[in-house]
Amino acid sequence: MAKNKKQKVKRPKALPPRGFRDYFGAEVVERNAMLDKITDVYQRYGFDPLETPAIETVEALGSFLPDVDRPNAGIFAWQDEDNAWMALRYDLTAPLARVYAQFRNDLPTPYRRYAVGPVWRNEKAGPGRYRQFYQCDADTVGTPTVAADAEICAMLADTLEAVGIPRGDYMIRVNNRKILDGMMEYVGLLAPDDPSKFATERGVAMRAIDKLDRLGVKGVEQLLAKGRKDSSGDFTEGANLNSIMNEWILGVLGAKTESNELTISRLRFYMEDSIIGSEGVDELEEIVDLLKAQGYGEERIVIDPSVVRGLGYYTGPVYEAELTFEILDDKGRKRQFGSVAGGGRYDDLVKRFTGQEVPATGVSVGVDRLLAALREKGRIDSQAKGPVIVTVMDRDRMGDYQTMVAELRNAGIRAEVYLGNPKNFGNQLKYADARNSPVAVIEGGNEFEAGVVQIKDLALGAALAANIATNEEWKAQPAQMEVARGDLVAEVRKMIARADG
Amino acid sequence: MAKNKKQKVKRPKALPPRGFRDYFGAEVVERNAMLDKITDVYQRYGFDPLETPAIETVEALGSFLPDVDRPNAGIFAWQDEDNAWMALRYDLTAPLARVYAQFRNDLPTPYRRYAVGPVWRNEKAGPGRYRQFYQCDADTVGTPTVAADAEICAMLADTLEAVGIPRGDYMIRVNNRKILDGMMEYVGLLAPDDPSKFATERGVAMRAIDKLDRLGVKGVEQLLAKGRKDSSGDFTEGANLNSIMNEWILGVLGAKTESNELTISRLRFYMEDSIIGSEGVDELEEIVDLLKAQGYGEERIVIDPSVVRGLGYYTGPVYEAELTFEILDDKGRKRQFGSVAGGGRYDDLVKRFTGQEVPATGVSVGVDRLLAALREKGRIDSQAKGPVIVTVMDRDRMGDYQTMVAELRNAGIRAEVYLGNPKNFGNQLKYADARNSPVAVIEGGNEFEAGVVQIKDLALGAALAANIATNEEWKAQPAQMEVARGDLVAEVRKMIARADG
Repeated sequence: MAKNKKQKVKRPKALPPRGFRDYFGAEVVERNAMLDKITDVYQRYGFDPLETPAIETVEALGSFLPDVDRPNAGIFAWQDEDNAWMALRYDLTAPLARVYAQFRNDLPTPYRRYAVGPVWRNEKAGPGRYRQFYQCDADTVGTPTVAADAEICAMLADTLEAVGIPRGDYMIRVNNRKILDGMMEYVGLLAPDDPSKFATERGVAMRAIDKLDRLGVKGVEQLLAKGRKDSSGDFTEGANLNSIMNEWILGVLGAKTESNELTISRLRFYMEDSIIGSEGVDELEEIVDLLKAQGYGEERIVIDPSVVRGLGYYTGPVYEAELTFEILDDKGRKRQFGSVAGGGRYDDLVKRFTGQEVPATGVSVGVDRLLAALREKGRIDSQAKGPVIVTVMDRDRMGDYQTMVAELRNAGIRAEVYLGNPKNFGNQLKYADARNSPVAVIEGGNEFEAGVVQIKDLALGAALAANIATNEEWKAQPAQMEVARGDLVAEVRKMIARADG
Repeated sequence: MAKNKKQKVKRPKALPPRGFRDYFGAEVVERNAMLDKITDVYQRYGFDPLETPAIETVEALGSFLPDVDRPNAGIFAWQDEDNAWMALRYDLTAPLARVYAQFRNDLPTPYRRYAVGPVWRNEKAGPGRYRQFYQCDADTVGTPTVAADAEICAMLADTLEAVGIPRGDYMIRVNNRKILDGMMEYVGLLAPDDPSKFATERGVAMRAIDKLDRLGVKGVEQLLAKGRKDSSGDFTEGANLNSIMNEWILGVLGAKTESNELTISRLRFYMEDSIIGSEGVDELEEIVDLLKAQGYGEERIVIDPSVVRGLGYYTGPVYEAELTFEILDDKGRKRQFGSVAGGGRYDDLVKRFTGQEVPATGVSVGVDRLLAALREKGRIDSQAKGPVIVTVMDRDRMGDYQTMVAELRNAGIRAEVYLGNPKNFGNQLKYADARNSPVAVIEGGNEFEAGVVQIKDLALGAALAANIATNEEWKAQPAQMEVARGDLVAEVRKMIARADG
């Protein structure tokens, strides 16, 4: 419209914003198929879907309240007309908190909800890490019973099997934040009657423990004692625990042994002097029993006190799904695939809004990590199945080609007429190749007169196809056959089935 | 964590931003089911999915370039760290343009893509209109042939039938922007050799025509002549066409008659002196022929010159899916349901980025309108199916209840153990009611000893359930039966099947 006015406007760059990407064809289909399988399991477990808007008020999102002119700590935020701050959600839990607070009188108690969708982080993107990515969560809100935690562990196991991770290739590891608290109590860094005491010292020790995955026992040991110098030469001050306490903590963290029963009795021994710690052990025992009753034994779910899952957020059981099969890392070394999902109990969900404490527990599946794992296991056929291409030999007979394609589609076969410029037949075949088409249909004037069509198995001929420029050469290929026009649908179906099998 | 520090922080409001809403349970399931059906058809027609990020640079989005400090014309926009403007996409076509320009050398030509997802408009929300809503588009980029337009009309018909709009309840109406141009040429408001001439006058006439749907023939007639006073008393200046021209235009707009063939021959007569107009008629004829070849006759697709679909954007065929069944409007008057999808050919898609003109045609389905239509037709069962609830009579036997629920889930039955406080049995039944559960399972100590369970048809008992407070009363209900513990799964399955049938 305004074309004539803006002759001199500089051309825009055809790029998405930095840190964002597009997903094409098979990538979209694969992810959706996986998410459907996951949400089918969530659904079967009684969870209901909830879809909140992408945008929340910054006030409702919480943790990122603006203390300067503009909130910029990790979220995309802006001011609306009334100068109120809005932002894109950075996870699916914060909106759940807002929804539960808003609708708590109308929602069933407990409220089981699942949510799937993109979230946004205003962070530096890196290889494989983007500023928009999917999450797939399930949470049970409003019940303190650890039966809810046990159930989510069972659901997580079912979920992994449903998407194609076989039993034996994953493990659900369960721990309890209360055992961490028990540890801190034992080493004198937590006073049960005044949790604010020793907060700084406790922070140092907790951060040390949280690094177990990354630094290993040796590194944590150093950080619990005097401190640690990393490979760059930087020194991190330690928690200054003596060697007895240090060993005791590492003993608890390494308490996992050959059976859940034995691990629990070890933990019970370690925690015997801590009320909170013993409570944590009781809860783990109850979880193990409930899971056993449902058929989930330690071949799938293990108690593992080394599971920490970040600091501060969780208040009770924590769980993590780890894939145990080996892959090669960047440097060609074997390592386990690692964590693809995790969660736990957190009880402050709604308090910010209402002042009421509402117990909740939930899991978040790392959608991209899990997709990567399925690719690794060859569980995803990353080639999307292309459509049958009805080629155009004679553009005046477009109607006939459209009739063919309608017959194919009505039979449920993915199909299309080539709609580019039909002059160069080679381009039509290159197009079919680019689309990963299983079959090309060819009907020139002679075939039309004779009431036949040529159908060509492109899966077979794919490697050669790119170099074929004329119809004659094409016909010389072995995988091509002539069929009666009336048998088109049946013969194409057979050819696709052959290619699939 | 920071609990103690922030004792005095004001509590946030538990509300989404103005103009946004949440979608619960069945609403999410329904929409996803409908979108799956739509994309299945798109897929069958050879279209591939594309998922672009929610965020684009304002530069790439185009039409809303910032000329003041902040772009605020209808989009949500903000500045990133480098002061570059970013914004939420307002439709799915602008991102397609960016993607096609960016990847044009790697994408097949023609490129058929579909896209589904939310878009955002920074506009005043109204009843049923929100600032985030779904679109579901399919476009063919890179081919000028009207076979592509015809195909999208056919696909639109298939789509409507796939989601549950029966043949006869919808009509695809097709027109061509070139006929509008032909009209303007005839009445002297378009000079084919210099389209910039009479732009203002033509704008007045075109806007008049565009109001046909809303104002009817009478209103358009006034606007094409001297002008029109609306019900508020405001006067809109007219195009000042004389009555002969005025009548001629209304003749073209009303040229639709009993068959597509006759409509086309009428149009041919009207357009005989306009090259562009005649071209438009030829294209419509070709579309009709191609559709006929695929089995789509005028019971589904009609040529209708009164279809305008906005101004400026389209350059060739335009199409619109209209639902023809009647509903009652707000005032209780009968009216047709109206448009649920539309699109057309637009050829400036990529030019902004590359300078090259790339022909494209595409359709957008109004997801919320179509959902409303399906509800209207009773094609959606808005009650989501709730889970079977295994009630908790004895909280020490939670393991046994979990065993039951695991058996049900393994048999594919949606089920859960009640995880709220089990003390008040009435609350468990209220919960089952709130969840729209088909069946409750009850096993007290006596049943456990006797190796039986009670199963209760809640669909039958729903109306009474809310008032039942004790297990005794509950047992007195007629729809309850005792079954052997070993038959639990089979009997629950039967009961659900009965409720469904």
